[in-house]
Amino acid sequence: MLETLSVNEKPQPAAREKRVKKGLVIVNTGDGKGKTTAALGVVLRAWGRGLRVSVVQFIKAETGNWGEIQAARKLGIDWHAMGDGFTWLSKDIEKTAERARAAWALAQEKIASNNFDLIVLDEMTYAFHNGWLDVNAVVAWLREQKPAMLHLIITGRNAPPELMEFADLVTEMKKIKHPFDQGILAQAGIEF
Amino acid sequence: MLETLSVNEKPQPAAREKRVKKGLVIVNTGDGKGKTTAALGVVLRAWGRGLRVSVVQFIKAETGNWGEIQAARKLGIDWHAMGDGFTWLSKDIEKTAERARAAWALAQEKIASNNFDLIVLDEMTYAFHNGWLDVNAVVAWLREQKPAMLHLIITGRNAPPELMEFADLVTEMKKIKHPFDQGILAQAGIEF
Repeated sequence: MLETLSVNEKPQPAAREKRVKKGLVIVNTGDGKGKTTAALGVVLRAWGRGLRVSVVQFIKAETGNWGEIQAARKLGIDWHAMGDGFTWLSKDIEKTAERARAAWALAQEKIASNNFDLIVLDEMTYAFHNGWLDVNAVVAWLREQKPAMLHLIITGRNAPPELMEFADLVTEMKKIKHPFDQGILAQAGIEF
Repeated sequence: MLETLSVNEKPQPAAREKRVKKGLVIVNTGDGKGKTTAALGVVLRAWGRGLRVSVVQFIKAETGNWGEIQAARKLGIDWHAMGDGFTWLSKDIEKTAERARAAWALAQEKIASNNFDLIVLDEMTYAFHNGWLDVNAVVAWLREQKPAMLHLIITGRNAPPELMEFADLVTEMKKIKHPFDQGILAQAGIEF
């Protein structure tokens, strides 16, 4: 049962009639918290069911002391933090761009391998709007190469329209209130 | 480093100066996917850091064959699905209301125990807007009893303004595109 159906709601009869089963392309975007975190939640859920999961991170670095990387290691999840921790402070953008392209090459390998049920491409959208990857080329490749039953989650702000058009499920995480605005520190184990 | 700071963004200097460390009250609301799922992601991250985690679910039932419950069992997380799977089809609303009140009583016990670093109150908001729990009474109790360093995540649609006012971090998960609208089935390990 879908979470969105759990309370006081009816699916449209028309939609019910033509239901199909397929690997979903999911996009988590928006300026709010929860884009990567919701992807992690799906990773946990999928792991709970014994699905084969791979995560390729485009921005985060292995060295970043992330709670999720520690968790993934304990769970034996295939996890690749390919970034260099790129921020607004980064100096060498070309190095970051190269890392993003390497992350996509690795993702293509994982996707085409047919060895996974769920692949997360974390913070991939930054590679699009920084011009490191071409969204049309990526979508065209996915249309050709993504195994039909593979679920794909792509996260990051400002998902390009071409990607949202291709996706089955798009959620915008919208910031309503943020503790940073009130001077509260990011908390280990909660936000990273 | 906060996810929201990872790309091209600067924290406000004013905010940086007065940073404090405290247990966050986090609300995930909105009509989109990812409210419970993002809470699960935080659970995974917290577990990865060895934090003590408890989850109390107000609507979902143990019997529901949820991927997340299977995962929690494998991870040894304190997890209580207190609901009866209430949906728009439910007949016996009073039974559901009683279960929600029992879930809150259990949550109060967990919160006051000081035995946890993170507690998730999943789909609690339905108890507010169905009139099973009074939001003002709940917030007043939390103001008095919640240990200062305990992180709390409350999920569900239509979070009441009183709860959002009390929270440190509020994110609205907004549906942009949903596969159900296109007749695609909910997928095991991904959506439940």
